[in-house]
Amino acid sequence: MGKNGRVQVGIVGASGYGGVQLVRLLMDHPEVELVYLGGESSAGKPFADLYPHLAHAVNLPIEAVDAEVIAQRCEAVFLSLPNGLACQITPILLEKGCKVLDLSADYRFSDLATYTTWYGTERSDQSTAATAVYGLPELYRDRISEAQLVGCPGCYPTASLLALSPLLKQGLIVPETAIIDAKSGTSGGGRQAKINMLLAEADNSLSPYGVGRHRHTPEIEQICSELAGHEVKVQFTPHLIPMVRGILATVYATLRDPGLVRDDMVTIYNAFYRNCPWVRVCDSGVYPQTKWASGSNLCYIGIEVDPRTGRVIVMSAIDNLIKGQAGQAIQCLNIMMGWDETLGLPKLGFYP
Amino acid sequence: MGKNGRVQVGIVGASGYGGVQLVRLLMDHPEVELVYLGGESSAGKPFADLYPHLAHAVNLPIEAVDAEVIAQRCEAVFLSLPNGLACQITPILLEKGCKVLDLSADYRFSDLATYTTWYGTERSDQSTAATAVYGLPELYRDRISEAQLVGCPGCYPTASLLALSPLLKQGLIVPETAIIDAKSGTSGGGRQAKINMLLAEADNSLSPYGVGRHRHTPEIEQICSELAGHEVKVQFTPHLIPMVRGILATVYATLRDPGLVRDDMVTIYNAFYRNCPWVRVCDSGVYPQTKWASGSNLCYIGIEVDPRTGRVIVMSAIDNLIKGQAGQAIQCLNIMMGWDETLGLPKLGFYP
Amino acid sequence: MGKNGRVQVGIVGASGYGGVQLVRLLMDHPEVELVYLGGESSAGKPFADLYPHLAHAVNLPIEAVDAEVIAQRCEAVFLSLPNGLACQITPILLEKGCKVLDLSADYRFSDLATYTTWYGTERSDQSTAATAVYGLPELYRDRISEAQLVGCPGCYPTASLLALSPLLKQGLIVPETAIIDAKSGTSGGGRQAKINMLLAEADNSLSPYGVGRHRHTPEIEQICSELAGHEVKVQFTPHLIPMVRGILATVYATLRDPGLVRDDMVTIYNAFYRNCPWVRVCDSGVYPQTKWASGSNLCYIGIEVDPRTGRVIVMSAIDNLIKGQAGQAIQCLNIMMGWDETLGLPKLGFYP
Amino acid sequence: MGKNGRVQVGIVGASGYGGVQLVRLLMDHPEVELVYLGGESSAGKPFADLYPHLAHAVNLPIEAVDAEVIAQRCEAVFLSLPNGLACQITPILLEKGCKVLDLSADYRFSDLATYTTWYGTERSDQSTAATAVYGLPELYRDRISEAQLVGCPGCYPTASLLALSPLLKQGLIVPETAIIDAKSGTSGGGRQAKINMLLAEADNSLSPYGVGRHRHTPEIEQICSELAGHEVKVQFTPHLIPMVRGILATVYATLRDPGLVRDDMVTIYNAFYRNCPWVRVCDSGVYPQTKWASGSNLCYIGIEVDPRTGRVIVMSAIDNLIKGQAGQAIQCLNIMMGWDETLGLPKLGFYP
Repeated sequence: MGKNGRVQVGIVGASGYGGVQLVRLLMDHPEVELVYLGGESSAGKPFADLYPHLAHAVNLPIEAVDAEVIAQRCEAVFLSLPNGLACQITPILLEKGCKVLDLSADYRFSDLATYTTWYGTERSDQSTAATAVYGLPELYRDRISEAQLVGCPGCYPTASLLALSPLLKQGLIVPETAIIDAKSGTSGGGRQAKINMLLAEADNSLSPYGVGRHRHTPEIEQICSELAGHEVKVQFTPHLIPMVRGILATVYATLRDPGLVRDDMVTIYNAFYRNCPWVRVCDSGVYPQTKWASGSNLCYIGIEVDPRTGRVIVMSAIDNLIKGQAGQAIQCLNIMMGWDETLGLPKLGFYP
Repeated sequence: MGKNGRVQVGIVGASGYGGVQLVRLLMDHPEVELVYLGGESSAGKPFADLYPHLAHAVNLPIEAVDAEVIAQRCEAVFLSLPNGLACQITPILLEKGCKVLDLSADYRFSDLATYTTWYGTERSDQSTAATAVYGLPELYRDRISEAQLVGCPGCYPTASLLALSPLLKQGLIVPETAIIDAKSGTSGGGRQAKINMLLAEADNSLSPYGVGRHRHTPEIEQICSELAGHEVKVQFTPHLIPMVRGILATVYATLRDPGLVRDDMVTIYNAFYRNCPWVRVCDSGVYPQTKWASGSNLCYIGIEVDPRTGRVIVMSAIDNLIKGQAGQAIQCLNIMMGWDETLGLPKLGFYP
Repeated sequence: MGKNGRVQVGIVGASGYGGVQLVRLLMDHPEVELVYLGGESSAGKPFADLYPHLAHAVNLPIEAVDAEVIAQRCEAVFLSLPNGLACQITPILLEKGCKVLDLSADYRFSDLATYTTWYGTERSDQSTAATAVYGLPELYRDRISEAQLVGCPGCYPTASLLALSPLLKQGLIVPETAIIDAKSGTSGGGRQAKINMLLAEADNSLSPYGVGRHRHTPEIEQICSELAGHEVKVQFTPHLIPMVRGILATVYATLRDPGLVRDDMVTIYNAFYRNCPWVRVCDSGVYPQTKWASGSNLCYIGIEVDPRTGRVIVMSAIDNLIKGQAGQAIQCLNIMMGWDETLGLPKLGFYP
Repeated sequence: MGKNGRVQVGIVGASGYGGVQLVRLLMDHPEVELVYLGGESSAGKPFADLYPHLAHAVNLPIEAVDAEVIAQRCEAVFLSLPNGLACQITPILLEKGCKVLDLSADYRFSDLATYTTWYGTERSDQSTAATAVYGLPELYRDRISEAQLVGCPGCYPTASLLALSPLLKQGLIVPETAIIDAKSGTSGGGRQAKINMLLAEADNSLSPYGVGRHRHTPEIEQICSELAGHEVKVQFTPHLIPMVRGILATVYATLRDPGLVRDDMVTIYNAFYRNCPWVRVCDSGVYPQTKWASGSNLCYIGIEVDPRTGRVIVMSAIDNLIKGQAGQAIQCLNIMMGWDETLGLPKLGFYP
């Protein structure tokens, strides 16, 4: 227990965009005290060396990563590391009683064979992975509330699955017709110096990438298959958009019942997300924009039905670094701790 | 005949982005002399009042629109007007022997009933419309060469049809599975003061619009149906992207023959566009970016096949104001005049 | 007194960017209840018609403006109107006992002759204007605490004066050498459809405007003169930057004492702003970026001394819509009400 | 002599933005044949590996740098290398009779002591440096026409000096009052992966840098001193702007004769640049925007006089990669070869 009875938490991998987002969000959280920042390449530096504008607000150093130390000081820890690293320290953290929220892909797959197929590395921690819960609260709130290890969803899967879930769960669409055309701001690429992410290259431009083979595909398919009750393959195409934050997923699928109209769908979605404080279903005829969600943990969903083609088109907008990453992890922590799901999370961004 | 034996041309609707693009491009054209600029709201002003940075290069005034005068002074005229206006002067221009290149939707439809359904106005010039050729040279070069009236394609249809045509013409896909997810810079909205096009609103954001009902849909369908040999409905969804220029169309369709691989498709596309100087098929594994096409009349096409889903994904990138509008109109003029199709058009933009 | 003993406040001119910013900020304020939204052009509409993404959070209508009604329902009111309108209702509001925070230029000048010179309209409310306090808390905290009417500073003057004040107050510079080269995102132009503010025009570009005659000049000069103890003229040049939010003012002035070095200046600034929670003086050698301040009420100040030229260069960065407008007005309200100056205001934005 | 009697030229350092700009521009040049591309890190690769969209237009490989080989194959060569490398091969190139246009800082200074002070490296080629001409044609056309070695100006000095030269040459200002507040798009930072140049960091933001110590300062001062006839120190502050291309320099200086008005200045500037095809002086009351110059070799200059302060404010806008770099180098080549100064250079960009 920390100051004022707050729960002490830590962040491993604090230097990247996921890390700084967690730092920033946790500072506003009324039940949490941030006591530990860990990292490899920046170990030993004050956090404020990386983000000088936060110097007045954060005076923690970045420490070398030592699972024993973390478990001793933190009741819960967020792992914001490149894929393949979380699985090296998670077993120890769990053994010492620490709650773990992993933001990488390491614990998103119930079957590690899928992980190995798409991420190219063998894993020997299937028993640990089997205990992980997929951290999408709108679908798995109950399981998350009892989990010690949560594998937080990727940014694209969050937007995609929130758009698709009601359709699949209710059997409204032909699952194999699902096509997800997703668009993301460049912050999704992380705080790494890459030429294609330079403003000079990425601004005034628009690029598809990873067509037919992006690693978020199996993650989306795993959940879609579970919802549909049988194996589902989806088409997923990401695009790089000249903006900093935000994801819009435009999802297409053929309706089983061509008689359904837009208002029906809005009603169905509202019912599905009735108890979900972080999902806003737009009124009939309104489509979401990424700017609406920017700076908040909200997902806005808009729905259209095209009677000419028999398809439903669902558009979901999130802030890729909040609902798509750090905010959602905190939403999961809230649930794991038995707190209100909305605690400490930004309800509204600034506009414009 | 004008100076140095050049062909005298005019532009009606010179004040908008289509107009200024035509002005700029025609100034570099070796066989053309721009002698007339027309407009309604800005009639009487020097063109340079609207675009001060062109003051040293263009000293034409904008004149009130008078079809008789235009026909007298111009061998060919570009109409860059809001929908529904070109059809008011075109019959006179044609009668007087003027070649007409209309950039609006007025002469894109062989059947005006389709126009009326989607654009909401009755038309009485079916006989004129029946003589119009759809100005997509990669498909209709021969007809354009003999036309007096060309209905130039919309920006989205240009990108969409160049991506889809080889597939439909060769019968490679199931036509009704075609989905076009298109993304455009905001210059496509024209030089009109609209709140949703303000930088403060549109920057850092991404918005779908016109889902299932955008007016470019019937235009795409008309040509797709002709290529397929039967009526085809396509799903078309435009999105507003925070950049000035460029369109990327991401096109999805189910292959009839699941055995086709990416290299097959690249070969097929290269063959299809063999004689098309303005289409560049990317090497296998390369996807286009809009920045590549910016400032040129080129269309870059990249192709992927996803064996997991049996779909082909085709991505086409153009500059919406050049190949998607003014450049393509000049390409048509070149063909109508019997000139080289590439004459006076920019082959490469600047990068980055 | 409103719900839970909260103070009831209203906003007149709720539809613009100043309005939506106030709405958003006041929703997080623990001591305030927003009970009234007023406007002319949008009177009768629900606020959510203008900002659909706020539909779940704000269900107030926009009402026609009636000073009597406002004063009856609100203890304090923010006026976010075009220049020249606030002065029409303020006298009534004050008479009825309402606290007034005006975000326009109407009550920024102690001498209305200056207003008339620069804004071109005669005014007859000098007696009211004489009671107004200039709402820059870092300079006038005490006067604000006793004011009933506050004329909140413009966005440029806020950034400029926070950069210049220590220099002038301490007599460190030759006042007439002060040059302010200021750069602003386009949201400063408001939510009005203007062609030069379109993304297509303003993106990828950079424009100076109002050189030598911008209306924020006399406002800056009035305060500079007061600080210097004699009349001061400053050079002020604003520029439009292709971004949504943020102002950076780069201020140049010749030092009286050429022996002063950068560290001296940092010490002096830190001392000057010691009790100012919303000003952050950067460490020696660090310059601020507008992104740091975005989404917060902070002003970051960086300082350089150039021994080669004998000049000090001060750079200040703010969010033009928060510290430069709505946030600062709420900071003033906090002081007027005797609350902590930081109450309900965002301490940190999101990065990147 | 190359194909069709064209002059054979080469580029060393072809992989960066300066290189690709030169490649692109030289392809349009009617008197030049590009026969050689050299580079270190990318030696052995086809140029099109770096810029795939140019694959159809450029099929030269990048070769390892060998001065003897270059001199044998090229009549003139552009060196677009990091500072400190050009001086290693230039003496050999000159000796073999090759014309050299260096885009780095190596040959911008008549006195290498200045170079050493600001760039930190000793140099032993003072005799070579003494033969170099500063490649700003508007000032040194005659000397350039007779030069074998041209040290092309930096991007900021180009914009700054074109704004300042008439004032200094005519003795209109007090030289030591000159302040240059310059703003640049991020392409000025080159095609190198740096975190502060990522879109996620640089977009939506605005940063001053190198205040009081940017390396372009001595270059500006060298020419200003020459124009003024005595040593002049200027204040120069660069800023990073969230756009790809363009520089705007806002220059402030105190007029010697306070009676001069704006129209006088416009007349003086027009006279000064009468024979300069690449400088456009804006009409009185018009200020330039960077978008106007984008994609052309033009420099637009706007002038204001503030009678309140006795200062002149001059604003110059260029495309930093064309007039600020590659275009200007070609302009110099044109002059060295006795060709028309405008040959092969873009007269107008596209708008918007």
